[in-house]
Amino acid sequence: MSSVDELYPVSCPFCKIADAYPPEASPVPQSPDPERVDPQAHVILSTPYALAFLDILPIAPGHILLTTRHHYRKLSDLYTTPQHPNHPSSDETQQALESARALGEWLPPLSRALCKVTGIEDWNIVQNNGERAAQVVPHVHFHLIPRYQEGRRENAGKGKVDVGMLKSWRMFGRGAREDLDEEEGEEMAGLLRGALREEVEGGGKAKL
Amino acid sequence: MSSVDELYPVSCPFCKIADAYPPEASPVPQSPDPERVDPQAHVILSTPYALAFLDILPIAPGHILLTTRHHYRKLSDLYTTPQHPNHPSSDETQQALESARALGEWLPPLSRALCKVTGIEDWNIVQNNGERAAQVVPHVHFHLIPRYQEGRRENAGKGKVDVGMLKSWRMFGRGAREDLDEEEGEEMAGLLRGALREEVEGGGKAKL
Ligand SMILES: [Zn+2]
Ligand SMILES: [Zn+2]
Repeated sequence: MSSVDELYPVSCPFCKIADAYPPEASPVPQSPDPERVDPQAHVILSTPYALAFLDILPIAPGHILLTTRHHYRKLSDLYTTPQHPNHPSSDETQQALESARALGEWLPPLSRALCKVTGIEDWNIVQNNGERAAQVVPHVHFHLIPRYQEGRRENAGKGKVDVGMLKSWRMFGRGAREDLDEEEGEEMAGLLRGALREEVEGGGKAKL
Repeated sequence: MSSVDELYPVSCPFCKIADAYPPEASPVPQSPDPERVDPQAHVILSTPYALAFLDILPIAPGHILLTTRHHYRKLSDLYTTPQHPNHPSSDETQQALESARALGEWLPPLSRALCKVTGIEDWNIVQNNGERAAQVVPHVHFHLIPRYQEGRRENAGKGKVDVGMLKSWRMFGRGAREDLDEEEGEEMAGLLRGALREEVEGGGKAKL
């Protein structure tokens, strides 16, 4: 998708994060410095095709974003249109396919890590395409949004979003969201990296 | 996930659809009879790992569900826990991995087909895990929900859901949803199958 990349050389915040956190030997970075970008990024996952980090406007503590390393605006951009019917395995198509697979592959272990760290059992996955669907950053991403039980927030860190706010949050508006506290964010990200590392190394994830 | 399959031998409606619509030579079935199950199923996609069909309680015309062929309750069940640390490529783990990849792979071409058929440019992907997150059918599935522009419903079939309803729909409740009209459903499904077939055959999808 080089033409799209050229359209967002600097301004796309997720491309900035992707540039600042290249893939390491392990999919879960060891101790990535949050200050490589501004605002800070609390990175949990960094592979050749996918990245995950905390949302800086969390709806609930532990709100994670999973995104593609390469720039695609909407989910529909993940496959090139059949411009090259004789080259179905072009590099662009292959990159899109690997990116789409990576999104599918990483949602489950990220979900498991999220449940383990926060103690939640229920959560939503949301991915918005276009303004009318409440997409804000024009780089495809999935939200992982914990749904806390009332009175069971002990394990969820010290987030300031209360349960009443979760209940009234509407998917298609921004709702009431507070800036992520940097210290709390880094603590949460550290816990999530630890739990995700166990997923990856424990045999729960077959490859990568 | 045989143990989970055994828990839902008959009662899971998505397992019933999976049984009734086995994979065919092409990922897009030719003219699947909606009456192989009750209530009718308007199937768009049927592969060894994934199925897509219309939601029978559509939030908007063209509301699609993408699900795994095998029974997993939540996204977190898509990877077996490390019960077999010495067998990371066990059949169960491999099935889960292929299922997760299939979900990632099919969201983009389904999205493209949906845009083409309905004329929408914006849409939401939603996947709910657990009661608190509004999961109703206990078999992992992604919703593809078109967001229509006001006054631009001409191409969207004859669905009865009006735009005001879309605006007020809330993600975490059932909202106001009407039963899918069977005739309209089959017309919509036929259009979606045609558009998806073009995606698959046109070279937009590299592999399967
Ligand atoms: Zn970007
Ligand atoms: Zn099932």
